[in-house]
Amino acid sequence: MSDINKVVLAYSGGLDTSVIVRWLQDTYGCEVVTFTADIGQGEEVEPARAKAEALGVKEIYIDDLREEFVRDFVFPMFRANTIYEGEYLLGTSIARPLIAKRLIEIANETGADAISHGATGKGNDQVRFELGAYALKPGIQVIAPWREWDLNSREKLMQYCEQHEIPVDFSSSKKKSPYSMDANLLHISYEGGTLEEPWAEAEEDMWRWSVSPEAAPDKPAYITLTFEQGDPVAIDGERMSPATLLEKLNKLGGANGIGRLDIVENRYVGMKSRGCYETPGGTILLRAHRAIESITLDREVAHLKDELMPRYAQLIYNGYWWSPERRMLQAAIDDSQSVVNGEVRLKLYKGSVTAVGRRSADSLFDERIATFEDDAGAYDQKDAEGFIKLNALRLRIAAGKGRELT
Amino acid sequence: MSDINKVVLAYSGGLDTSVIVRWLQDTYGCEVVTFTADIGQGEEVEPARAKAEALGVKEIYIDDLREEFVRDFVFPMFRANTIYEGEYLLGTSIARPLIAKRLIEIANETGADAISHGATGKGNDQVRFELGAYALKPGIQVIAPWREWDLNSREKLMQYCEQHEIPVDFSSSKKKSPYSMDANLLHISYEGGTLEEPWAEAEEDMWRWSVSPEAAPDKPAYITLTFEQGDPVAIDGERMSPATLLEKLNKLGGANGIGRLDIVENRYVGMKSRGCYETPGGTILLRAHRAIESITLDREVAHLKDELMPRYAQLIYNGYWWSPERRMLQAAIDDSQSVVNGEVRLKLYKGSVTAVGRRSADSLFDERIATFEDDAGAYDQKDAEGFIKLNALRLRIAAGKGRELT
Amino acid sequence: MSDINKVVLAYSGGLDTSVIVRWLQDTYGCEVVTFTADIGQGEEVEPARAKAEALGVKEIYIDDLREEFVRDFVFPMFRANTIYEGEYLLGTSIARPLIAKRLIEIANETGADAISHGATGKGNDQVRFELGAYALKPGIQVIAPWREWDLNSREKLMQYCEQHEIPVDFSSSKKKSPYSMDANLLHISYEGGTLEEPWAEAEEDMWRWSVSPEAAPDKPAYITLTFEQGDPVAIDGERMSPATLLEKLNKLGGANGIGRLDIVENRYVGMKSRGCYETPGGTILLRAHRAIESITLDREVAHLKDELMPRYAQLIYNGYWWSPERRMLQAAIDDSQSVVNGEVRLKLYKGSVTAVGRRSADSLFDERIATFEDDAGAYDQKDAEGFIKLNALRLRIAAGKGRELT
Amino acid sequence: MSDINKVVLAYSGGLDTSVIVRWLQDTYGCEVVTFTADIGQGEEVEPARAKAEALGVKEIYIDDLREEFVRDFVFPMFRANTIYEGEYLLGTSIARPLIAKRLIEIANETGADAISHGATGKGNDQVRFELGAYALKPGIQVIAPWREWDLNSREKLMQYCEQHEIPVDFSSSKKKSPYSMDANLLHISYEGGTLEEPWAEAEEDMWRWSVSPEAAPDKPAYITLTFEQGDPVAIDGERMSPATLLEKLNKLGGANGIGRLDIVENRYVGMKSRGCYETPGGTILLRAHRAIESITLDREVAHLKDELMPRYAQLIYNGYWWSPERRMLQAAIDDSQSVVNGEVRLKLYKGSVTAVGRRSADSLFDERIATFEDDAGAYDQKDAEGFIKLNALRLRIAAGKGRELT
Repeated sequence: MSDINKVVLAYSGGLDTSVIVRWLQDTYGCEVVTFTADIGQGEEVEPARAKAEALGVKEIYIDDLREEFVRDFVFPMFRANTIYEGEYLLGTSIARPLIAKRLIEIANETGADAISHGATGKGNDQVRFELGAYALKPGIQVIAPWREWDLNSREKLMQYCEQHEIPVDFSSSKKKSPYSMDANLLHISYEGGTLEEPWAEAEEDMWRWSVSPEAAPDKPAYITLTFEQGDPVAIDGERMSPATLLEKLNKLGGANGIGRLDIVENRYVGMKSRGCYETPGGTILLRAHRAIESITLDREVAHLKDELMPRYAQLIYNGYWWSPERRMLQAAIDDSQSVVNGEVRLKLYKGSVTAVGRRSADSLFDERIATFEDDAGAYDQKDAEGFIKLNALRLRIAAGKGRELT
Repeated sequence: MSDINKVVLAYSGGLDTSVIVRWLQDTYGCEVVTFTADIGQGEEVEPARAKAEALGVKEIYIDDLREEFVRDFVFPMFRANTIYEGEYLLGTSIARPLIAKRLIEIANETGADAISHGATGKGNDQVRFELGAYALKPGIQVIAPWREWDLNSREKLMQYCEQHEIPVDFSSSKKKSPYSMDANLLHISYEGGTLEEPWAEAEEDMWRWSVSPEAAPDKPAYITLTFEQGDPVAIDGERMSPATLLEKLNKLGGANGIGRLDIVENRYVGMKSRGCYETPGGTILLRAHRAIESITLDREVAHLKDELMPRYAQLIYNGYWWSPERRMLQAAIDDSQSVVNGEVRLKLYKGSVTAVGRRSADSLFDERIATFEDDAGAYDQKDAEGFIKLNALRLRIAAGKGRELT
Repeated sequence: MSDINKVVLAYSGGLDTSVIVRWLQDTYGCEVVTFTADIGQGEEVEPARAKAEALGVKEIYIDDLREEFVRDFVFPMFRANTIYEGEYLLGTSIARPLIAKRLIEIANETGADAISHGATGKGNDQVRFELGAYALKPGIQVIAPWREWDLNSREKLMQYCEQHEIPVDFSSSKKKSPYSMDANLLHISYEGGTLEEPWAEAEEDMWRWSVSPEAAPDKPAYITLTFEQGDPVAIDGERMSPATLLEKLNKLGGANGIGRLDIVENRYVGMKSRGCYETPGGTILLRAHRAIESITLDREVAHLKDELMPRYAQLIYNGYWWSPERRMLQAAIDDSQSVVNGEVRLKLYKGSVTAVGRRSADSLFDERIATFEDDAGAYDQKDAEGFIKLNALRLRIAAGKGRELT
Repeated sequence: MSDINKVVLAYSGGLDTSVIVRWLQDTYGCEVVTFTADIGQGEEVEPARAKAEALGVKEIYIDDLREEFVRDFVFPMFRANTIYEGEYLLGTSIARPLIAKRLIEIANETGADAISHGATGKGNDQVRFELGAYALKPGIQVIAPWREWDLNSREKLMQYCEQHEIPVDFSSSKKKSPYSMDANLLHISYEGGTLEEPWAEAEEDMWRWSVSPEAAPDKPAYITLTFEQGDPVAIDGERMSPATLLEKLNKLGGANGIGRLDIVENRYVGMKSRGCYETPGGTILLRAHRAIESITLDREVAHLKDELMPRYAQLIYNGYWWSPERRMLQAAIDDSQSVVNGEVRLKLYKGSVTAVGRRSADSLFDERIATFEDDAGAYDQKDAEGFIKLNALRLRIAAGKGRELT
């Protein structure tokens, strides 16, 4: 353990990672560099500085990564209409590769030979952090305290704080939630506690980002979202930066009870786990993106995207953002998005978001052909006969030879 | 045209197909057999008998196919969590193969050499009817009047009625909807009219099966759905037949504003079209099925199903239910469902349906392993290190050789 | 038929397309522009000029497209290791989009309002020509004489020549092969004649481009192929242009009995057909490309390519080269090829081609890790335990709950 | 280590696994049960009994599993035309699940609480053995000596033998090959030694099952293979059992220089490795199976199989034979094979195998339709126009709106 001189830690400023700072110093006798990022989790990051200093940390990084997060990670992912296991919008998964990238950048800047994080040995996040780190800097060492130490209960952690004089305000600063939570600009997640019984309904006071549908306004809200090359750029005509836009969508969604999710998902490490999520802006964005694609994308491109999507989602969920196969899929997805421009009008009401209108200069919707009225010859209905006849040919030959289908 | 002696017509009893009866008799000089099915469209089918008789039809088939429809078509499709283009629950598509099958059965019984239908040359339904017919009886002839005649406006149709003394009550019996509609136990659809402008919101009085979310009750309804081998068998513990169950779900969904859909879809014949759908029961069923699968299905089976689903949906949408490739996919899907047993508790509220609990004797959710608390050694967190290390190996080798990922 | 003023015809100079020139002039009363391309079919194209002139054609295009064909069509396709139905190297399919593109370019240059070709109504080529043409110029008209006229036998064609004074040397110039053949730099194909019985072995004297394996040299030939970014650039260290390189590979392959293929394939129009092909250079190229990829491609990229390949092959076979979905897949494929650089050593011997060595500056083969000898700690075998344990976890949980796999 | 009472070892009778017997006895103080199987590796298995007895083993299992191996593992895999990474016929991979199954059966019979094997920590076989074992008996313990001990060189092993009085004839019985080899009825494999340099050609005297193409007979051999439901059942009309048939194919292939393979493959544990394989019978079988499918399978079924195959191959390669996802895919594959009946005539010549004829009572090849001659109206060429027009519609609409494809 003596061969590590400096380690960069993903540091939240909370109890767990504060303990980790001290534990790393003691166990590895190494210098600790802390890295704290604002990715929209909704808590001040600057206070982490004083806490790190109090723990004797000399190199402290505090970054505002919100724009980069939304622009380079969230939006590219939404271009694929990404959903994991039919439900989950990957709010936690998509933030990890950015953290991994910054950890490695800081390791390079500070000459650190290791990184560390506060993720447990049971979850997906350890995998995402570490796969990213290894992919970006193959010789990096990784210290995952939760897999190494025996401080596997809150009591032991508190005891450790006392023994090592870790400032008590960390532990008492606020009432501990019964849930394990994670938040960023895309979502907030809840696991553990009473959620460990999949039959039990989540308690209303668990949710933090959205009002309940019942408590949402009795009148629907309408918004118009503008897309350029597959990414949203304006709300109701007002252009805004990626992070600003997502933040605004979160507020709109949250106020209308939109984006709550309660699922049992399959972790990469092999177990099922119950998770609840609030993704207000993302839920709106997904529906809107599908709607603008519905009039601008070619059919076969859309279908190909739908077939590739589950695999792309799985890559991100499992922690392979920084991989050549993700990049390869992204190349295909991005190729499809140059024409995904236009506007979608959405109705937000008590938990549901509906696309009620869509228009685009790049629309492939051809009213002359689609019409039920006289189309003045734009479409020759007689073509359908040959189309059907030849598509049926293989089936007819088989049936003619006595093949049965039932 | 003289070589057709008898034709079986899918006959609704409405104006269009009544005109077709006469037109077939006149144009082909052949006998017409009518076939009218109750597939849950919500209209009496028995009145079609008198109308057919008035048109001189001698062989009249009127069938109640509701149970067969739900049991052998709707439920098998839902085992795959089938959605077309991310949104559409395939309500129209899934009814067509059953109609095609009955048309052919009746052709065989009556010695008819042709079938006919009232679908236009621009839509998907002609394809679905005809592919099914050809696949089941390769020598069958198909007459698609809308592709042949020149009665391509309402005025011409009316004129034809007058000239051929088709009883007037057909045309005046009820106010003509401005939309082209289709209904069965799974859904009702709307196309045409003002919907041909994709930017225009659907008018509230168009919807027939559901109240608006705004008009739905202010208190949520909770129901419990029981599944056996992937199919729902009981609501709130009360066992019921497939059709009865879906009908009940439709009522529950409709009363809570659930299942409205407004999309632009890609037709098999090559154009985009705007469609609105109400699928109250199906919307509930899809969410519930995913929820029961979430605790009972193996992860890789679930992911494989998700990857196969878009293709399976496309097969059904395009009219290939009666094909060997659909049967092959169904074999895989059905193989996965023997363990999909248990109960899902659902909250229905003003347009949204949420799974709030799920339980099963076949659950793979392992609370001992999933817990955030001490798991007494059920899971060894140290295993994660090797898992990550080997999954990262190829990435590390590549990075070590200077490969870049950005 | 009077609304066509000028038509561009894909003109080979042979009997069939010469008849088409006259037939177009007579039937449509339009001007005919001929287009004859050298795509490596092995016949002089210049003689087509005199023949066209003799038929009164005023605008005559004769192009050498060999380099463009190999560089922009053949090589991009081989980057995907493309094979249709496990066997066919798509030699005919890949030439059609280039012809379609030139037909449209010439239509634009000459102000023609239609194109025409000599493909029959039963085959794939009509589809490939016409889909390409429509995709590149949506308003173009297409005349497919074989689908229109009644000259459906050799006798009728000859009679037509006589009646219309089409110079006789067209018909007598050489003994007519019993097979329908097509050739370009990638392959030569044979259909029809005795091949219409799939049980009958192809006759030895049918094959034109390769000696039989039995007649090939008794000693193997060795060559080294150099790749850059997925494309071959040199043989035995000698750099050459794409067409030159493929031509040389054809000679090497043909001399060693390589590249004969005898299959029954599924046409897009719905029937099965027997085809024999000689693809000497392509057969070598495919094996070599896989070999250079085997040491340079990441595993997951390679597997993703393998999963996408059948669909990509089907797109090309069916005639969708000029489509957004092909372009989207190409974007993914091309993204993977920047690292596909290096050399492959191949053994050619009596019909078989074997990769016997491969090396690359971009190799991911890591001898330190792969070795059976002591690896000095490059790979920690203990990591495998955790890797297996977590990959097995879902299976163990299921088995522990009594799930059976048989 | 004291909690293991009895372990079932996959015992070859060779040096390595003999050392393992003693090492297990010494290290774990447990009883060892040996299991030796004849899966067609070409060596006597009965001598393993005396060797095991000499090591003090009391429960000795020696099984002839050849028929089960071919019938229940090899043939089901070939129904899918399975190839890993475009080249490898999975000869080693497919034997492992059978061994795993027997290990667990014997553990159940003998009351053993652990299994053990002689696979190293770098390879795929450890994964295949252990995933299978865990899937079939989740509480089983696994001892993988190569991951635990420090006998990581031949010298140390020999030293261990001497110290523990393991009979010397194990080590001197035959000249040690410089390659790591594995054999069963499907193939023999070679790794290590000079093969660790991917640029070096494999030495001729390495190959054991086949003559070189150069040394093969100068005249081709022809055979006819009969298939029933996708499996081969007879050679030249003579019915034989699965193992007998594969053995005969191996002889025929080997004598004609067929089935040698030299590749670099991607292991599941993350590294690339060079492997050489001889799969004479399998190579013939694959080509023959594709040929009989080419006339009996529906096109879309064949294409679906081709798209699923790489994933199915990967499952088997990675060790997931005993998994619900493999079973699910198998259900689809097997559903397709009921019609795969008939005969294939093959030419074997100096390393290549060619299908030269195929016939079947279930053939979908329709000579009336496929013919280049007059088809008497079986196929209406005019249908092709509508087919093409509607397939082109989406492309035309896009082009009409100015979309570019280049």
